[in-house]
Amino acid sequence: MSQFINDKEQIVTQAIDGVLRNHNGELKRLDGYPHIKVVTRADWTPTRVAVISGGGSGHEPSHAGFVGEGMLTAAVCGEVFASPSVDAVLAGILAVTGDPGCLLIVKNYTGDRLNFGLAAERARALGHKVEMVIVGDDVAIPDIPQPRGVAGTLFVHKIAGALAASGASLEVVAETASRVARHTASLGMSLDTCTVPGAEKEDRIANGMAELGLGIHGEPGIEQVAYSHAQEAIDLVTKRLEPCASHGDLVVLFNNLGGCTPLEMGILVDSLHNSRMGHRIRWMVGPAPLMTSLDMRGFSISLYAPTTDDLKSLKSEVGPGNWPGCRDVGNVEIAVLPEDIRPVPMDPSSHAPSQQLIERCCQVLIDNATQLNELDTKSGDGDTGSTLETAARALQRRLDTLPLADPAKLFHAISQELSQSMGGSSGVLLAIFFAAAGDTAKGGCGVQTAFSAGLERIKQVGGAEVGDRTMVDALEPAIASLGHGMCAAAKAARKGADATSQITRAGAGRASYLAAASLAGHNDPGAEAVAILFETLADD
Amino acid sequence: MSQFINDKEQIVTQAIDGVLRNHNGELKRLDGYPHIKVVTRADWTPTRVAVISGGGSGHEPSHAGFVGEGMLTAAVCGEVFASPSVDAVLAGILAVTGDPGCLLIVKNYTGDRLNFGLAAERARALGHKVEMVIVGDDVAIPDIPQPRGVAGTLFVHKIAGALAASGASLEVVAETASRVARHTASLGMSLDTCTVPGAEKEDRIANGMAELGLGIHGEPGIEQVAYSHAQEAIDLVTKRLEPCASHGDLVVLFNNLGGCTPLEMGILVDSLHNSRMGHRIRWMVGPAPLMTSLDMRGFSISLYAPTTDDLKSLKSEVGPGNWPGCRDVGNVEIAVLPEDIRPVPMDPSSHAPSQQLIERCCQVLIDNATQLNELDTKSGDGDTGSTLETAARALQRRLDTLPLADPAKLFHAISQELSQSMGGSSGVLLAIFFAAAGDTAKGGCGVQTAFSAGLERIKQVGGAEVGDRTMVDALEPAIASLGHGMCAAAKAARKGADATSQITRAGAGRASYLAAASLAGHNDPGAEAVAILFETLADD
Repeated sequence: MSQFINDKEQIVTQAIDGVLRNHNGELKRLDGYPHIKVVTRADWTPTRVAVISGGGSGHEPSHAGFVGEGMLTAAVCGEVFASPSVDAVLAGILAVTGDPGCLLIVKNYTGDRLNFGLAAERARALGHKVEMVIVGDDVAIPDIPQPRGVAGTLFVHKIAGALAASGASLEVVAETASRVARHTASLGMSLDTCTVPGAEKEDRIANGMAELGLGIHGEPGIEQVAYSHAQEAIDLVTKRLEPCASHGDLVVLFNNLGGCTPLEMGILVDSLHNSRMGHRIRWMVGPAPLMTSLDMRGFSISLYAPTTDDLKSLKSEVGPGNWPGCRDVGNVEIAVLPEDIRPVPMDPSSHAPSQQLIERCCQVLIDNATQLNELDTKSGDGDTGSTLETAARALQRRLDTLPLADPAKLFHAISQELSQSMGGSSGVLLAIFFAAAGDTAKGGCGVQTAFSAGLERIKQVGGAEVGDRTMVDALEPAIASLGHGMCAAAKAARKGADATSQITRAGAGRASYLAAASLAGHNDPGAEAVAILFETLADD
Repeated sequence: MSQFINDKEQIVTQAIDGVLRNHNGELKRLDGYPHIKVVTRADWTPTRVAVISGGGSGHEPSHAGFVGEGMLTAAVCGEVFASPSVDAVLAGILAVTGDPGCLLIVKNYTGDRLNFGLAAERARALGHKVEMVIVGDDVAIPDIPQPRGVAGTLFVHKIAGALAASGASLEVVAETASRVARHTASLGMSLDTCTVPGAEKEDRIANGMAELGLGIHGEPGIEQVAYSHAQEAIDLVTKRLEPCASHGDLVVLFNNLGGCTPLEMGILVDSLHNSRMGHRIRWMVGPAPLMTSLDMRGFSISLYAPTTDDLKSLKSEVGPGNWPGCRDVGNVEIAVLPEDIRPVPMDPSSHAPSQQLIERCCQVLIDNATQLNELDTKSGDGDTGSTLETAARALQRRLDTLPLADPAKLFHAISQELSQSMGGSSGVLLAIFFAAAGDTAKGGCGVQTAFSAGLERIKQVGGAEVGDRTMVDALEPAIASLGHGMCAAAKAARKGADATSQITRAGAGRASYLAAASLAGHNDPGAEAVAILFETLADD
């Protein structure tokens, strides 16, 4: 699959510049492209401890996306999945470190440890106070002496960043960062591998399988497991995580590894709350893409039991918009359904002329069902006649429950009946027509005024005008002529309906997707139905 | 490919509940599952105009993710890619609408128009003031009377939401929303189709092709075009968009359709700035997933020329964290590289004993290169000897440029030399060792103290302790014994090195990935090198 990149050599530099263009005055970079890719705060004066992180790219929004007040002071970015060089890290340190010193937060990967480590030595040799904390929060491989650093590193960024912003000393910031790193546990799971830019995607995970315990560089997880659904995935991950979590109330960092949809993340969060660990989770960061592995369709869960001060640090406001905040977790708040959504009970009344009129209309629609279906096969799926027939029969059956003596109520009742018995767009449109007509008729106006209101509304909602080859082509002239009697209305409707056979480009409705040839010479079935109705009424 | 879902029937309801669990006190939902999926503000009192939107799901964070102060009052969610029902929309209207009335913002898709339209009629019949604005911002098909509503709808949400929050009347909010909708132009492009949950992915777009002008429901774009790189994609999209954009300075809403990585989005933004329209873009919303089409690897660009008041509305603070803000667009700010990152020039000086010592060490490493390589074939890639030999020869060549008379400077110089001439992790580790030793030696301490500092640092950075089968196994006891003379140190180093042949599970370095059988009986080559060095020095 293609990707939205230009030059493979410039993936990271162009992406960084894309971010910087919208963060004028907030972020800047050092003049060291292509080898030195360092993003720093634009508004920084080194009067407090600087907090620096970085590593390979491909984990966005980490790390440049978390540079800003209250989090990172600088991010040192390597190429995709490759550590930045010693020079790059040193440049980052020198660019932002003042008398209070700096803390390097490094994920436990050999390249990062070594390059950040040597840069720290060089900076110290130049007289700077530099501390380094290595995060190894991944619990995929039990008892390994050098666990990988993954998304739990963001707890360290946030808490160290908040402390540094508050003016704490380097010793305090580094000690706290080290404590948070030691007590954070993370585990990831994925349904597919990631696509490294410019490389063929590795087809490693079979359908129905998932990888458990993966790093963030596309390396295989510690094992493949059978996968059937989200709750099962969460149950497995929490089962492995639980023994590694600290005691006490937990904050979870719910990380999208890149390729999960927000729908999936919502379902995973809901599943986490329904899991064995659900009751222990008090706060949540995310769900969000926080430390991704390009487009990997996976997630990771990081757990930490914060002290009161830690929680304050996690909840404090920060500059970077990519930090989703740390929210209290609670139950779903459910409000009662408004009573008025149930259809208003009808208030039956008798009125012989209205009853005969409706009966007549229903009968003519039933009688013409086959003809209208045939017309619809030319431009649609051939069911206009049947749809109208079904609605007409339903209305016939309900005739004695209708408020026949009150036009406004009657129109509303017909609207309600049609919306229940008549499928498809035309059913809803006619329901809207009669609802708007009923609304207007409340004022005691005549039928023409009421129907005009109905027409206006379906034109607005349906988006059709005369000439668009819809029922509006017959309905609009018919209603406009109603003042001159039913015969005039019927003639106008017929003229409008017949004109639709000359319209070879439909402007609305399904026929708008059809070619001219299949439309020419046939009336629109909706317009035809309107014409037949008015002609029948004129005959009476 | 599998997805993180549970029951296909509960995709949307579980995802909504996942969101609600973390938004306690901010969001709630109506008690209408599974058919009525309405998310409303939990903190809402209907004293101002309510702004309601919605439509099919699969577009997250739209729509529920934009419910909150200053944007939507309620979101009415349908199933994936399917309009919510009339009842659901009506329930949403009734739940949040008070005397000031409500505005429905509807994307131009037939199902949405009809269901929202009929619900509006019903609400009006119940006495509510309801206005509806239909957004048709997609310019993919020129001159179509009913263009689709896509991501530009978010401009309408934001501006109408800000106005409503300020207490504007329904008439003003609706008129403004209608004006914004009329003047917004959007166009999308994608490299792949989306994966509808529970359905097989459609394989419609060949490699090297892209679809231009797509809706947000997985329907095919208006045409397939050849695709080679991001700039070309942006150039094509902006060429089509430009004639449809209003005059004046533009705000762009840069939408990730779901599957693009943040790296790709950054590159696309950079490419947009380099495009024909770059100079006209003054403000940007995003790049971010705003109105997605599940996991579609595509983007859309929406353009609007805001009035002064519109811009104020776009920039106002809102509750929903998914709104990325509207930022000024500017140039990339570039800071000069710190001068100190260049290696410090050496300050050559003479000191015969140091010179002889270094020469002797270099020679013994050169002499033992083959033996050390052979040892490394048992546990690594067989190049430990060669790597050390290369570094030794480089150091030999530079002997007369070294500050031999000043131990602190000499250690730093050796560090610098090793980091340049010696590849791999061991080169960086030894560079760190000598840098830390040099730092400590500045205080005028002895070699043992300086080397102890170096040892501590490489243990921290490399993550190795005694017993992990690394050079630390020989180095630590040797340095500890230095106080008793070089012979004691050599004996301790030899003992430590030989003990590594019994360590069958390496704790750090590359050997930690190897099985026990391949390690047993062979000394670690790094530890062996250290032992040989100390033995040579003891012989002198």
